[in-house]
Amino acid sequence: MSDANLRRSWVTSANGHADFPLQNLPLGLFSPAGQAPRAGVAIGDEILDLDAAGRAGLLEGDALRAAQAATRDGLNALFALGAGPRRALREALLALLDADHSRAAELAGANLLHRQADCRLHLPARIGDYTDFYVGIHHAVNVGKLFRPDNPLLPNYKYVPIGYHGRASTVGLGDVDIRRPNGQTLKPGATEPGFGPSQRLDYELELGVWIGPGNAQGESIPIARARDHVAGFCLLNDWSARDLQAWEYQPLGPFLSKSFATTVSPWVVTPEALEPFRSAQPARPEGDPQPLPYLYDEGDQQAGALNIELEVLLLTEGMREAGLAPERLGLSNTLNMYWTVAQMVTHHSVNGCKLQPGDLLGSGTLSGPERSQFGSLLEITEGGKQPLTLANGETRSFLQDGDEIILRARCVREGHASIGFGECRGKVVAAG
Amino acid sequence: MSDANLRRSWVTSANGHADFPLQNLPLGLFSPAGQAPRAGVAIGDEILDLDAAGRAGLLEGDALRAAQAATRDGLNALFALGAGPRRALREALLALLDADHSRAAELAGANLLHRQADCRLHLPARIGDYTDFYVGIHHAVNVGKLFRPDNPLLPNYKYVPIGYHGRASTVGLGDVDIRRPNGQTLKPGATEPGFGPSQRLDYELELGVWIGPGNAQGESIPIARARDHVAGFCLLNDWSARDLQAWEYQPLGPFLSKSFATTVSPWVVTPEALEPFRSAQPARPEGDPQPLPYLYDEGDQQAGALNIELEVLLLTEGMREAGLAPERLGLSNTLNMYWTVAQMVTHHSVNGCKLQPGDLLGSGTLSGPERSQFGSLLEITEGGKQPLTLANGETRSFLQDGDEIILRARCVREGHASIGFGECRGKVVAAG
Repeated sequence: MSDANLRRSWVTSANGHADFPLQNLPLGLFSPAGQAPRAGVAIGDEILDLDAAGRAGLLEGDALRAAQAATRDGLNALFALGAGPRRALREALLALLDADHSRAAELAGANLLHRQADCRLHLPARIGDYTDFYVGIHHAVNVGKLFRPDNPLLPNYKYVPIGYHGRASTVGLGDVDIRRPNGQTLKPGATEPGFGPSQRLDYELELGVWIGPGNAQGESIPIARARDHVAGFCLLNDWSARDLQAWEYQPLGPFLSKSFATTVSPWVVTPEALEPFRSAQPARPEGDPQPLPYLYDEGDQQAGALNIELEVLLLTEGMREAGLAPERLGLSNTLNMYWTVAQMVTHHSVNGCKLQPGDLLGSGTLSGPERSQFGSLLEITEGGKQPLTLANGETRSFLQDGDEIILRARCVREGHASIGFGECRGKVVAAG
Repeated sequence: MSDANLRRSWVTSANGHADFPLQNLPLGLFSPAGQAPRAGVAIGDEILDLDAAGRAGLLEGDALRAAQAATRDGLNALFALGAGPRRALREALLALLDADHSRAAELAGANLLHRQADCRLHLPARIGDYTDFYVGIHHAVNVGKLFRPDNPLLPNYKYVPIGYHGRASTVGLGDVDIRRPNGQTLKPGATEPGFGPSQRLDYELELGVWIGPGNAQGESIPIARARDHVAGFCLLNDWSARDLQAWEYQPLGPFLSKSFATTVSPWVVTPEALEPFRSAQPARPEGDPQPLPYLYDEGDQQAGALNIELEVLLLTEGMREAGLAPERLGLSNTLNMYWTVAQMVTHHSVNGCKLQPGDLLGSGTLSGPERSQFGSLLEITEGGKQPLTLANGETRSFLQDGDEIILRARCVREGHASIGFGECRGKVVAAG
């Protein structure tokens, strides 16, 4: 196995690539300059054009079917095919792009590749519905503490994978700047709200989940089958206006405080690529209730937990002008999820809610227990009370105009080529 | 004017029709038996095929453009055209269908019409996002009283048009039965939740709003322009599982308690058809704060309030077997909205949230102040404590399997032909 796990590609930039070695092969939607969107796979600094590979006769059977299912609107139909064709495509591409391929030199000259730097990336799928969960238990505790110091977690948290419906129309790649939202806020001590640009703009570090086949309305997805309905993963920044949120969220939850923008990373990292990086499912803390039977599956537990390192970085206008590199604000891990992705999928559908190919789930903010692992400024600055001092002397309670937030993710394991997710970037600009 | 308001059609079933006289002309998407979906206008017991009318050379200019904008997927592109072409189409159809049309006999033989009873109706548009508001103040008070008897309205209610994101994938016409949802509930006195079919299944009587042109992300719709972004109206039943809702809704709002099903009426009643039925905007109760400036427009106030009578009826299995007619559970009116539709639209976009053609807004439950005007069983039975006795002796705390809920709406004004919305129907079936 270890040979396969370290296989090299004839796409030389892939070998040792921080994000996209041969072992990753994430799916995406891209346009070469002046051309229509199409499906591709990131490999090193290049993108393999799946349609071109198909037309060149390099794919067959299920792999060909998967490669040709995408349209210029997105990968929805590819996601709908489920795990079988997606795996077949992966196996075919692992062989096709292998440095030991007998026709490697010929393939390198066959116009299958486009330089990423010359392409435009698109949202990988038309998002039918976007749902944001709240499965980062440290985040839930940290936020709960700000409101209820003695009793931060609500009674339902350890039974219910809490989630809410988000806004699909404003999910994007961050290639359009994030305009600071206007809205109503109640200033401390005030009895009437004011209106204006949010003064407490924040990011949230999340894992995104792209849904595969899905279920019919009125049916549900049993936990033992839930993993078959996950097409892949991305990074997700759930931009949040904390002052709008505090004033609006009772009794029906977050609304305008979130719906102005959500940013995802462009590449869909497949479950297959993440498989080697799973680690033992962390035991529930002693005294925590067992999941209700509909949320428990031995296979789900034995599949292990996603073990993905998640990082948030900040690049301020000041850093940019001084030529400084982005500064890390937090380093966390998907091991901080209290519920598995399978549990999220099954819970979401247990009432008969229809999940569709291309639906997007967010995990909720995935903070670790330490301050250096927090996934939002709300947590790092304790609701703005403890401003953060950056290496260049700037301070932040919340985000300022010109601030760019960069999310990164990485999977590392001895004897395996590391893989990454690429970046999820978004820059804040002044309110309109 | 009064002549125009009572004009008759050569489609004789339209004259005196409870819902669809010449003065209504609501838009919809329908399939004649065995044929592809297309846009149509309800007229009496018939549907005028807009594409056929266009091809027959009976429409021109903006009216033709509007008639031909729809696709088999829905009226989204027609909604996107905005008020001008929609009004042009209305004017053209008013003339075309008028009993006094010089070629009335010829038109009647021109295969422009399909009998509604022979057609299948479809969701009128692809819904990008569905948002549910909470602008029925009596409902907010009634529900608040169940939780906080002394202080039913939260402090934000009279400043913020409260809303939350709903689930678009399960909005339908009710032609598929409503399957009772399974989920977690906490029984009174229990410390741990159980799992099973909801025991407190309810309806909510709402007005639906179809969005027209919309706005770009990062921009907003000023209140003075908000009415230009409304394509039309429908009835909406926000099916709700109260026991799931009570256990899941803190801190992020309703989720699975609502996402199993939402039902709308098939026909899109235009703002033009409702125009004659607007009445003076009710004054805000004394002592209530004025809306913040971004939510206040003199033109919006002067346009008047929607004055639409809303009715909920119940048809139980027992009534069906005994051949009884549905029984009225509540009779309310859109005058019970605390915020105007323009205020909802402007508030929704004020943070830069992108609204798109075919997005759907719900008003929230529109109860009146009296029990006979309540728009949900939660309110009528005081959370199940005061079961309702029906005329046939049956009782209901919440809905039972086999119960069918029928919503109707009607606009009446002296000297004008009354118009209706058609029905919004949905029948509950047992959990899976």
